Amino acid sequence: MAKQIFDYENGQDMKLALLIKGAEVRIAKNGKKFIAFTFQDPSGHITAKFWDASEDDIAQYQPGVVVLLSGKRELYQGKPQIKIYTMRLATQEEGNDPENYVEHAPESKDDMGQELNDFIFQITNANWNRVVRRLLADHKQEFLTYPAAKSNHHAFAGGLAFHTLSILRLAKSVAGQYPAVNKSLLYAGAILHDLGKTMELSSAVSTDYTMEGNMIGHIVLVDEEIVRVANDMKIDIHQEDMIMLRHMILAHHGLLEYGSPVRPELLEAQILHDLDELDAEINMLTTAYQHVDPGTFTERLFGMDNRRFYRPENGQTYPDPK
Amino acid sequence: MAKQIFDYENGQDMKLALLIKGAEVRIAKNGKKFIAFTFQDPSGHITAKFWDASEDDIAQYQPGVVVLLSGKRELYQGKPQIKIYTMRLATQEEGNDPENYVEHAPESKDDMGQELNDFIFQITNANWNRVVRRLLADHKQEFLTYPAAKSNHHAFAGGLAFHTLSILRLAKSVAGQYPAVNKSLLYAGAILHDLGKTMELSSAVSTDYTMEGNMIGHIVLVDEEIVRVANDMKIDIHQEDMIMLRHMILAHHGLLEYGSPVRPELLEAQILHDLDELDAEINMLTTAYQHVDPGTFTERLFGMDNRRFYRPENGQTYPDPK
Amino acid sequence: MAKQIFDYENGQDMKLALLIKGAEVRIAKNGKKFIAFTFQDPSGHITAKFWDASEDDIAQYQPGVVVLLSGKRELYQGKPQIKIYTMRLATQEEGNDPENYVEHAPESKDDMGQELNDFIFQITNANWNRVVRRLLADHKQEFLTYPAAKSNHHAFAGGLAFHTLSILRLAKSVAGQYPAVNKSLLYAGAILHDLGKTMELSSAVSTDYTMEGNMIGHIVLVDEEIVRVANDMKIDIHQEDMIMLRHMILAHHGLLEYGSPVRPELLEAQILHDLDELDAEINMLTTAYQHVDPGTFTERLFGMDNRRFYRPENGQTYPDPK
Amino acid sequence: MAKQIFDYENGQDMKLALLIKGAEVRIAKNGKKFIAFTFQDPSGHITAKFWDASEDDIAQYQPGVVVLLSGKRELYQGKPQIKIYTMRLATQEEGNDPENYVEHAPESKDDMGQELNDFIFQITNANWNRVVRRLLADHKQEFLTYPAAKSNHHAFAGGLAFHTLSILRLAKSVAGQYPAVNKSLLYAGAILHDLGKTMELSSAVSTDYTMEGNMIGHIVLVDEEIVRVANDMKIDIHQEDMIMLRHMILAHHGLLEYGSPVRPELLEAQILHDLDELDAEINMLTTAYQHVDPGTFTERLFGMDNRRFYRPENGQTYPDPK
Amino acid sequence: MAKQIFDYENGQDMKLALLIKGAEVRIAKNGKKFIAFTFQDPSGHITAKFWDASEDDIAQYQPGVVVLLSGKRELYQGKPQIKIYTMRLATQEEGNDPENYVEHAPESKDDMGQELNDFIFQITNANWNRVVRRLLADHKQEFLTYPAAKSNHHAFAGGLAFHTLSILRLAKSVAGQYPAVNKSLLYAGAILHDLGKTMELSSAVSTDYTMEGNMIGHIVLVDEEIVRVANDMKIDIHQEDMIMLRHMILAHHGLLEYGSPVRPELLEAQILHDLDELDAEINMLTTAYQHVDPGTFTERLFGMDNRRFYRPENGQTYPDPK
Amino acid sequence: MAKQIFDYENGQDMKLALLIKGAEVRIAKNGKKFIAFTFQDPSGHITAKFWDASEDDIAQYQPGVVVLLSGKRELYQGKPQIKIYTMRLATQEEGNDPENYVEHAPESKDDMGQELNDFIFQITNANWNRVVRRLLADHKQEFLTYPAAKSNHHAFAGGLAFHTLSILRLAKSVAGQYPAVNKSLLYAGAILHDLGKTMELSSAVSTDYTMEGNMIGHIVLVDEEIVRVANDMKIDIHQEDMIMLRHMILAHHGLLEYGSPVRPELLEAQILHDLDELDAEINMLTTAYQHVDPGTFTERLFGMDNRRFYRPENGQTYPDPK
Repeated sequence: MAKQIFDYENGQDMKLALLIKGAEVRIAKNGKKFIAFTFQDPSGHITAKFWDASEDDIAQYQPGVVVLLSGKRELYQGKPQIKIYTMRLATQEEGNDPENYVEHAPESKDDMGQELNDFIFQITNANWNRVVRRLLADHKQEFLTYPAAKSNHHAFAGGLAFHTLSILRLAKSVAGQYPAVNKSLLYAGAILHDLGKTMELSSAVSTDYTMEGNMIGHIVLVDEEIVRVANDMKIDIHQEDMIMLRHMILAHHGLLEYGSPVRPELLEAQILHDLDELDAEINMLTTAYQHVDPGTFTERLFGMDNRRFYRPENGQTYPDPK
Repeated sequence: MAKQIFDYENGQDMKLALLIKGAEVRIAKNGKKFIAFTFQDPSGHITAKFWDASEDDIAQYQPGVVVLLSGKRELYQGKPQIKIYTMRLATQEEGNDPENYVEHAPESKDDMGQELNDFIFQITNANWNRVVRRLLADHKQEFLTYPAAKSNHHAFAGGLAFHTLSILRLAKSVAGQYPAVNKSLLYAGAILHDLGKTMELSSAVSTDYTMEGNMIGHIVLVDEEIVRVANDMKIDIHQEDMIMLRHMILAHHGLLEYGSPVRPELLEAQILHDLDELDAEINMLTTAYQHVDPGTFTERLFGMDNRRFYRPENGQTYPDPK
Repeated sequence: MAKQIFDYENGQDMKLALLIKGAEVRIAKNGKKFIAFTFQDPSGHITAKFWDASEDDIAQYQPGVVVLLSGKRELYQGKPQIKIYTMRLATQEEGNDPENYVEHAPESKDDMGQELNDFIFQITNANWNRVVRRLLADHKQEFLTYPAAKSNHHAFAGGLAFHTLSILRLAKSVAGQYPAVNKSLLYAGAILHDLGKTMELSSAVSTDYTMEGNMIGHIVLVDEEIVRVANDMKIDIHQEDMIMLRHMILAHHGLLEYGSPVRPELLEAQILHDLDELDAEINMLTTAYQHVDPGTFTERLFGMDNRRFYRPENGQTYPDPK
Repeated sequence: MAKQIFDYENGQDMKLALLIKGAEVRIAKNGKKFIAFTFQDPSGHITAKFWDASEDDIAQYQPGVVVLLSGKRELYQGKPQIKIYTMRLATQEEGNDPENYVEHAPESKDDMGQELNDFIFQITNANWNRVVRRLLADHKQEFLTYPAAKSNHHAFAGGLAFHTLSILRLAKSVAGQYPAVNKSLLYAGAILHDLGKTMELSSAVSTDYTMEGNMIGHIVLVDEEIVRVANDMKIDIHQEDMIMLRHMILAHHGLLEYGSPVRPELLEAQILHDLDELDAEINMLTTAYQHVDPGTFTERLFGMDNRRFYRPENGQTYPDPK
Repeated sequence: MAKQIFDYENGQDMKLALLIKGAEVRIAKNGKKFIAFTFQDPSGHITAKFWDASEDDIAQYQPGVVVLLSGKRELYQGKPQIKIYTMRLATQEEGNDPENYVEHAPESKDDMGQELNDFIFQITNANWNRVVRRLLADHKQEFLTYPAAKSNHHAFAGGLAFHTLSILRLAKSVAGQYPAVNKSLLYAGAILHDLGKTMELSSAVSTDYTMEGNMIGHIVLVDEEIVRVANDMKIDIHQEDMIMLRHMILAHHGLLEYGSPVRPELLEAQILHDLDELDAEINMLTTAYQHVDPGTFTERLFGMDNRRFYRPENGQTYPDPK
Repeated sequence: MAKQIFDYENGQDMKLALLIKGAEVRIAKNGKKFIAFTFQDPSGHITAKFWDASEDDIAQYQPGVVVLLSGKRELYQGKPQIKIYTMRLATQEEGNDPENYVEHAPESKDDMGQELNDFIFQITNANWNRVVRRLLADHKQEFLTYPAAKSNHHAFAGGLAFHTLSILRLAKSVAGQYPAVNKSLLYAGAILHDLGKTMELSSAVSTDYTMEGNMIGHIVLVDEEIVRVANDMKIDIHQEDMIMLRHMILAHHGLLEYGSPVRPELLEAQILHDLDELDAEINMLTTAYQHVDPGTFTERLFGMDNRRFYRPENGQTYPDPK
């Protein structure tokens, strides 16, 4: 297998294929334009400056494109960057599918799709079942390839489906332990809760917030979709079961301050919120632990109220650090 | 004109027609049922207990019904109530239209409907204009008769339309003063911003929150209606103008803590929020001033962060106290 | 089986054995003392006034004592109470074991004790295992009979052990799903996290906060016990594993505002906090649902930020209302 | 008309007159002093470094002074700056009036003064009228030339008077729409509300906070002036009307957290606070919109809780971007 | 010495002189007026109802008046009240000076006045010394007789002077221990900090907030007085020392949320705030301890964030409970 | 006496002995390692870069070591640093005791130890006296040499003991002024309140937080010590006096948000919290004043909610600026 970014050391010459994750055009002291790149492969991210960029360069080196690059790994203000010698677009034969250059969920799209189907099969309310099937069908490609968030947690390709599945697995345990829980409702809500991310985020590969994402938000964007398909399928959205389903999604952030227009008022809505947080936190922490040595603290984690977490020296069961 | 509740004094016998605003069935010490009534006419509210209520009594004396009552005005724990002598349903000839017994907006439905039309005429964006017309047509009866809130402000019949119109009048002044303001957007947003109240509240006469109102909230209930009619009329809800219109409604509470899923991100959305607050506050304060004497403070006002306001002794222009 | 409090209707004569849960001595208008009782049996609570109480009455009718009572069920200000005809202490033959008159966990002490042992068996770190065994041995009786809280959640005999076990079962699912989790640490922390309740609360039967409970708090009271037994068993409390165990308990309230002197800084401490909340919330909600009819909202729940929850009309799986 | 700062492009030689807005003396690596300048003309701000500054240079090149400069426009760390070739003081003939080099309100001092007079004419309470006239007379020059704030909103020469006038125009509309409003009180409060800025800020041209401004604050500084002139004119400050006027100013920040020692307790005080915020927000947003292209978001705006606002692509009525 | 309110027991006949602290006129069920009195003597407060009150009764039995009363001590809803037999105004010979019926500071007016003078003598800045002397002279009577607050702390006659003196004594210790402290400034600020209470509260005997107190607040009311006398004595209030003195008073509540328009920005302003809080807290706690038995908790104290405090059983040095 | 860091001027050659306070190893652009030093002597801190560091250099130049250095004082980005010419370890004869290179409390260890003893002598409760004596004996060396905090206040050698003594002196004044205060309890609590800092911080010289400090916190670390020694000395920790002593320490941060697991519920606990804050604030402010000129404001102070404080121009009693 070809060497990746973090297989090279500082000062070493590099020759490798990379995905352009970000490309910002700026003006240099000499008055000419340059491109400030962020490159990516499955080993991580690195920056580089491309001097004296022509309009052609700017036009072709866009985010989402794969390039072949030779250069040298350096340190700049304590952080690694690449000094570019040469660079050109990768051809299809050389492999220019962006998907190969991003981090992926630990399970395959097919496996995740299959397991999702098993859960849908257990949604016994007909309206919920039809709405869930229809919406997954409408957004299947994005649902299986998008990250769950731009950067906080499950920020990798397939992260949205993987996060959803993790919640469903937890939901299965909880429903098994507490018989009062309406399993159909909990599953339907869990599957749809973050589906709006497929509209809020711009793409699976170089992720940003869309204008709609900023001004409507992923919570209301799912609600809109439920209203749309229910109207299409002649399901009355003013029936109790449809109000309950919509409430599951609207309330899943738990607090108004976090953007839910209503707080949970159903047992299952409260549980969905709790499991959503639990899975996101475990993902954030295990990811952070992988970047530090045993016996030390992680960086402050933005998504965990800026707390630092301790990775124990002994008796641990965490994966090895990267 | 017939005497109303507050034309009688304590200790006086009363004979008048009243609207049942609330009717709660309870059990007395003697084990029999009684009805705890709240009666209403345009002069205000008063309570009364109806002892030894039969099942027939309970069935016919429901909120929204007009009754003829003879009794005596008394004080109970410092508050006025009626001791009921006799009571029966009012006939149509005697006048049993609930509308005649509630407080009304200071302008007629026709006048308000006409002025609204003038504003709609000035919405020059075709999509906004069509959505606004269609939704007003779908909810016209409720829009012109509902209160703007259960109790906080404009809590009278027609209050929703009157509050909307007051905001539009302020909006006209603001748009006149600041040319940057998109008048069409501001008017369209103002007209729709509280339309969801017609679904959130149970009726124009004896108002409570519906289950939908509690679990979806009036902000998302309007959004659902915009999505529905836009789909019907083949207007693409993913176009910039439709996102802007939906944003106007979604953001109009200003803060996430107040139930908006997004904060204002358009000049016009910020202005709509400000004018909504301004008009509600002026209504709350002028109402409160009417209940106290010059030179004294009002009660603490829940909707104004529990502040008390001072009604000046001299040089005032406020209306007389009730 | 004998009739219990809520088998009687208002106005009916009652004859039954009851546990005194509370007994407050007050002075009547006539200058004589009376006792304001709260009685309890497994069906719930009810109040009663015992007029003209002698010093002997006051001395013998203390909380925790079982009495035989004849009287009549009445309504007072909308709430049920007993009008006492006669009352005397129950004899041992008649059954005066307080335990028989309180609500109990849905599982037996033996079953819970057995399952706890199974979990302890899986704590593979020797220090944690020894500390947990020793502390459970020292507090076994209280641990198996105390409630988990005075009133918020699991407020029944055996509630502490039952709540602990529920968390352990959730912990088992989570540890199964996320291999990074240190199962031993999570189990040890879960078992000890609320053990301080046995010192914070006054007794299993008529529960109140002790002076120690108020001024030290149950979190530090467990910590004190860990320090004590570790010193006894010559385990160095400055070793990493002991610091981690203490951190699990100290951090389990999650936020400083909730009384934890430190916030979670270990993956397992974060999970313990989340599961503790999840189980407490599910218990509060299912309990509240049992007191309302389908299609209505619960009372505002103090422990859930004063939210009301909706019990759906259809398709529900919740237990029948009491 | 002569070329201004932003008429030059990067890399071009410049020759123009500029106002020194800031001049900070620092020590270079070589141990000699240099001056870090901020220059200003009506087109905006730019920085420059003046190397090897003598004591004479430092003495004469002070903020508020106009200079003639030749140099070259460059980029430094992405921001434009001037490389100075030569520089000297401007003579009176060349035009060295600082006023000509700052951004100005869109209306002339004379027009604003005239319109203010019209409003004062409508203050019918004699005490309020006299106090307002006297204080405006005492601070006229500053009132018509100062900005309304150091940077947040209306941060240009004449901004204070222009902001005040904008509020008065809004106030006129509001008083017209709601007859309960005491117009005299609202106008008097509006005119005086920010007059303390003339003492809180150091000058019209190179604005900073004075020591008094920091330690007393502009709200109490106006109050002090009202007390002073009322005493001079033998107006009793303990009369109701004077307490009301002082309350208008003291309460105009609306919340204690924003520095008002009391919250609004008069209808007019509440309205003044609302209109003050409304006008400041509209000014902040329209200014921010002018710096971004249609179809994009503004920078995060400090004065708007760090929100970004969207400038629509279509159908807009905003002015062109600068 | 004559028997006081709390020397009588429930059921006993009483005959004593009392001060009317509150007198609210209400209407009874029979339609006639009655007066709801609160009476006071140095032993505490008690309520009573005066039935069938004539207009003459209402006119003469005002707060601040001393009456001779015979009646009986009873319990009403668990609280003591007087059943009035007869009642008339006390004559001057019988002793009708309200001062004799209120709780007093533990030191005499003369002693406090003398000690204050000693502190003023140590204010070496001439401007501060003159302003303090002049303002104390202008408000001497009120300063020595008013309480420090309506109810929170030092709520007794002379409480304002006593609280001021307690702070000065603490200030003396602090200034002795930390030589950097400007003693003159700290003393001058301490003496003036609450002087506005003499304008904010209505009287020494039956205390309420004045309209000025509500709408200006005692902090700005002192500031106004400093401005007034400084102008009179031709002291420039824009000099550094006068700004510092005013800052001491303006900032003494410490936080904007507590009504200070600026936060402390001088060492001495910070210390004054801290000592003000410390003395108020100690007064609240020792007062609360006097009402409970050793080994129990106090009521929740409003001024201490609703905390309850524990009065130890052993080894205590607190005064005996009342 | 030898010249210290801040006796040299920029551009001057230096030759002096310094303590290494921090030593971070980084990689230079050329791929070689360098050490980023922070040096310290009693005059303050300065940074320096040591290029091309060998593994031997890295091994010997550790924090806490004294070196002899020749170099040149320079400015780098506006801050002073040393350009190193030569550097080697100091020998014992040359003076390599780290203690000589750190800032010290203004009183000697012996004097502070003596005064502490005098206070302990006045603790008349035998249990408190024994616990305090024993814990001070166990931690004497650290207690007399550690700082009170890493950077906020009293951040110098001996700062912990000096801060403790300052509180005791204030406590003495307060106990003298308010006879209700239990002096023994207040003294015992004051002495122990921050003793946990000796475990929370890593050393007296180059201070950082220990793992225990992060995960248990100094408040619980003292509590653990009280439990340990009480058990050793057979003192029952469940007695009222021991609960009170532990409460003093547990509650001394005043608010849960500041890390106290319980809020103060004893008069003495409240006072201890207040005096702790008062002394820390005075230390922070007088330290900050020493770094600015009269007539200017300090930097924003993190420990004072980011406020800036004014150092007056005239009539001041503060020490001269450094």
